[in-house]
Formats: sequence, structure tokens, C-alpha cells
Amino acid sequence: MDVCGIDPGLEVTGYAVVRVEGDSPTLLEAGTLTTRRSDELPSRLVNLASAFAEVLNQWHPVAVGVEQLYAHYKHPRTAIQMAHARGVLLAAASQDNVVVHSLSATHVKKFLTGNGRASKQQVQMAVQAMFRLPALPEPNDVADAIAVACCCANHLTSATLEVCQ
Amino acid sequence: MDVCGIDPGLEVTGYAVVRVEGDSPTLLEAGTLTTRRSDELPSRLVNLASAFAEVLNQWHPVAVGVEQLYAHYKHPRTAIQMAHARGVLLAAASQDNVVVHSLSATHVKKFLTGNGRASKQQVQMAVQAMFRLPALPEPNDVADAIAVACCCANHLTSATLEVCQ
Repeated sequence: MDVCGIDPGLEVTGYAVVRVEGDSPTLLEAGTLTTRRSDELPSRLVNLASAFAEVLNQWHPVAVGVEQLYAHYKHPRTAIQMAHARGVLLAAASQDNVVVHSLSATHVKKFLTGNGRASKQQVQMAVQAMFRLPALPEPNDVADAIAVACCCANHLTSATLEVCQ
Repeated sequence: MDVCGIDPGLEVTGYAVVRVEGDSPTLLEAGTLTTRRSDELPSRLVNLASAFAEVLNQWHPVAVGVEQLYAHYKHPRTAIQMAHARGVLLAAASQDNVVVHSLSATHVKKFLTGNGRASKQQVQMAVQAMFRLPALPEPNDVADAIAVACCCANHLTSATLEVCQ
């Protein structure tokens, strides 16, 4: 079972595809989808959606995991831009008939590190250890995408997932 | 020249298509695109984008006008949801090779009413007067979409438009 995780962003979206067979997951691919600041917003969104559709077409994951929205954002302006990106990514998944599951950040962190309030670096270290990576996964967006993919995969095999919102 | 205006929202998106020939614009169509709360977010976004693509396919406007993002939002949670909708709408326009222009709310209000801080009702009344409508255009989202379409059309024939962001 292959599961995709994404950490949406207009400038940088982290994505990862993990395969779950038996006890330990395998990291099939992880990276970033980026758009250029110099391009206008509508075409950045089209480019982002189309790059993500390529990932989905390549791996045909059974599900896409994404972090739930927060109640409050420290940087509302960035959050609004992120939401534009999140919108086209979720739509791309749905258009491809891939189910989207949303998981709270606390839940993802707790699953990976045992601590729901883990720092970004702790998540990176947990991901590095889990997949025995030679270095910390960079940027954070990639580590977060891997983390949400693993947490989503774990849920798909063990518990009920929350509805995407 | 036909110009489309939109007032994005996840639950209700207002849209309008105005034709500019000679001095006075004609209102070709205006209405709302709605999605169901009971549906999951990804499919709501796909439905919204596809309903908007139908409008674009029907009228083939030369441009889509949309209000610029604010610096601050009173209701950040609603703004985040709006941004998901705005993302897929802008992407749908761009995918259809329709240029998107963003105009500040102040600018749109000033163009319609002469007052950049006009109330929603004042905008509705100005729209009603401009097109000699039998009643106030309802809901607000429709009036706002008509207003932004008119303002966008006016700019296209008279001034430089700001880049969509």
C-alpha cells in the first residue's frame, strides 16, 4: 500500500510517498514542488496542481495525507497563501479519485516522536531514524510530508481517520 | 468585451458576467456557485472549480476580476476556507487561459459608489441602479461579483491593472 503525504505551501510544497508492506515502511520518493514568485498567482497554482498530479500519476497512492488546518495561524498572510495551494492540491487528489485524509499536527508529531509538541528538528530526526537516512531530511516541508504520510499509512491500517476539512 | 467577476467563497461564490459595448455595460448573467457542507473539502473544491469552468466555457470572458486579498481578516478561519476556494477558481481561470486581474476592495467600492468605504448595502444599491434591476441583487456575493466585474471591465478599457496576488 502506497500513501502520499503533503505539506502544502505556495512557494514550497513538501511531498512524500511511502510504501507499507509488513512492519517497516519504505520511502519511495520525497521532495518539493516549487513555484516561482515572479509568476502570477493563477499560473503558480496551475503549475503546482499539475506537478502534484504527476506525482499521483507516477505512484497511484491509495490515499493522500495532509495536516489539518489550525485554529489560529501566527502568520495569517502566509496561511492564506498556503490555503490557495492546499486548495488546488486537495482538488488535484480528488480529481484523481484519491481519498484525502487530514490529520492534526499534534497527532502526526506524537506518532513520529512520541511527543505531540515536538519541534521541527525532532520530527526531522525521527524521520531520519525511521528510514535510516544519511542526513536530516531538508527542507522541513519534506520531513513534514514524510511524517504525515507515515502517520496516514499507520491510521489506514489501524484506525478511523478524520474527515478532511 | 465580456468580463467575469467573482467573489470567492467555499460555501457561496458569487459570479457575474458583464458585457461592455459603448457607454453602458450589460449584465449577461449573475448568480452563485455553491457547495454542500456535508461533502468533504476536496470534492467541494472540485465541484466549485468545475461549476466555474462551465461559466467560463459558456461566456468565454476576456478576463476574470477578483478582489485582492486583504492584509487582515476579521475571521481568519473563514478566510482560510475562502482561500481554498479562491485557489481553485483562479487555477480554473488560468487553465482556461483567461487572464485574472485583482482589484482592491476599496477601489471597487470607490468605482461603484464614489466611496471606498461604502457598505455592502451601498454597493448593492449602486449595482441595482447601474443595471436598473427590479430589486437589490442578493446575496451580497452576487452584488460584489457584479461590482468587481464592472470595475475590472472599466480598467481594461482605461488603465493598467495590478498583478493578481
